[in-house]
Amino acid sequence: MHVAIPLYPRFTALDAVGPYTVLAFAPGHQVTFVAETPGPVVDDRGTLSLTATATYADLPTPDVILVPGGPGTLQAMSDPTLLNWLRQADPHTRWTTSVCSGSYILATAGLLTGRKATTHWAVLDGLHNLGATPVANRVVIDGKYVTAAGVSAGIDMALTLLAEATDIPTAETVQLAIEYDPEPPFQAGSPASASPEIRERALSLIV
Amino acid sequence: MHVAIPLYPRFTALDAVGPYTVLAFAPGHQVTFVAETPGPVVDDRGTLSLTATATYADLPTPDVILVPGGPGTLQAMSDPTLLNWLRQADPHTRWTTSVCSGSYILATAGLLTGRKATTHWAVLDGLHNLGATPVANRVVIDGKYVTAAGVSAGIDMALTLLAEATDIPTAETVQLAIEYDPEPPFQAGSPASASPEIRERALSLIV
Repeated sequence: MHVAIPLYPRFTALDAVGPYTVLAFAPGHQVTFVAETPGPVVDDRGTLSLTATATYADLPTPDVILVPGGPGTLQAMSDPTLLNWLRQADPHTRWTTSVCSGSYILATAGLLTGRKATTHWAVLDGLHNLGATPVANRVVIDGKYVTAAGVSAGIDMALTLLAEATDIPTAETVQLAIEYDPEPPFQAGSPASASPEIRERALSLIV
Repeated sequence: MHVAIPLYPRFTALDAVGPYTVLAFAPGHQVTFVAETPGPVVDDRGTLSLTATATYADLPTPDVILVPGGPGTLQAMSDPTLLNWLRQADPHTRWTTSVCSGSYILATAGLLTGRKATTHWAVLDGLHNLGATPVANRVVIDGKYVTAAGVSAGIDMALTLLAEATDIPTAETVQLAIEYDPEPPFQAGSPASASPEIRERALSLIV
C-alpha cells in the first residue's frame, strides 16, 4: 500500500505527520511525500520544513492520496500541477483522502462533487460552494473518499483507514505502538464544547 | 517563549510535530528545531526528513527544551554534543521536557536523577536504571521536568505546558484551532486497554 502525501507551501505539519506516523508504522505500508519539485517545503508557521522526496510525476498512481490542509490551501487550490495530479491519480486510488482544509483542494479538483465531506469546523459550511455536502463529523466516509476534520483528526482517520486496509488488530497494534490513548487536559477541542469566547479567539488565530 | 526541539537520526516524527504544532500555534511562542548541523534529519521510518534550522551552539539558552523519542534514542544517548548541550542549557530553562523515549536522553544527561518521569510504556521500567522513578501516567510533572508517554502523548503534554506558560483559555484556543477532540476508533491505545496479543504485536513493531 503506497500512500502519497502532497506538500505545498504553508501546509499544517500535524495534518500530514499525524496520519503519516500511523500509516508508516504499519507493516507493508510505504508513505512518500511529494511536491512539484523534491526538497524542503515550509509549513504554515514558517519554521518547519518537511522534505518531499518525489515529484508528482514520479508517483502517478499511488494507492492512497492524503492531502493535508493549512493556510496555504487557498494558493494550492490554484496550483494546476497539484490539481492535475489529483485528477489523474484519483481514478487509480483505493482511497482519496484529506485532513482539515485539504478537502477544499480535493473539491476544487472536482473529486468531491455530490459527496459528503468534512473539513476544519471554521470553514465547514463553505464546502457547499465547491459542490460537496458538508458533514460535521470527525471522519466522513463516502465511498473511497475519506475526509477528516481539523488538524489532529487525521490521526483518527488514518487508524480507520488502516483497519479497512488490513484488519482491526493491525490498527490496534499501531494505536498501541504510538500510545494513542488521548487525555486532552481541557475540553475545548470542538466548537460544540468550546465557549463562544474561545471560538472567537481560535478563529482569529487560524485566519 | 522560545522552545528548542533537538532532532537526531531516527527520531519519531509525531513525537516532535505534535507538541510543535500546539506550541507554534500559540501567540508569542517560537519553536526552533536544532541539531549538531543545520539541515534535514531523517526520521525512524527513513522516509521523512524534518529540517533543523540551527545548531546546538546557536541556541544555548532556550526557555523550553523538548526532546523527542524514537528508535534513534539509543545512539542519541551516546552523543556528547547533544548531552553537553542539554546539561548546559538545562539550568536556564523554564521547562525541560521529553516525549516517549526522549526521557532516556534527559536521564542519560543526568537531568532526571531522583525525579519522577515517564516514557513509552514498552520501556517504562528501564528508567530505573538511569536514576529516575518511572510513573505510568500520560504526562508526569516533577518541578520543571515534564515528561510524556509514547509518541502521541506529546500533544497532551504541550497543551498542559501551554496552559502553565499562559493561561487555560489560551491553551483551549489552540486546542480548538487544531480541533483536538480525539475520537480513536479503537480502544487499544494503552497497555491496560489492549489485549496481550496486541501488546506482543506492538512490541515487535517498535523494536
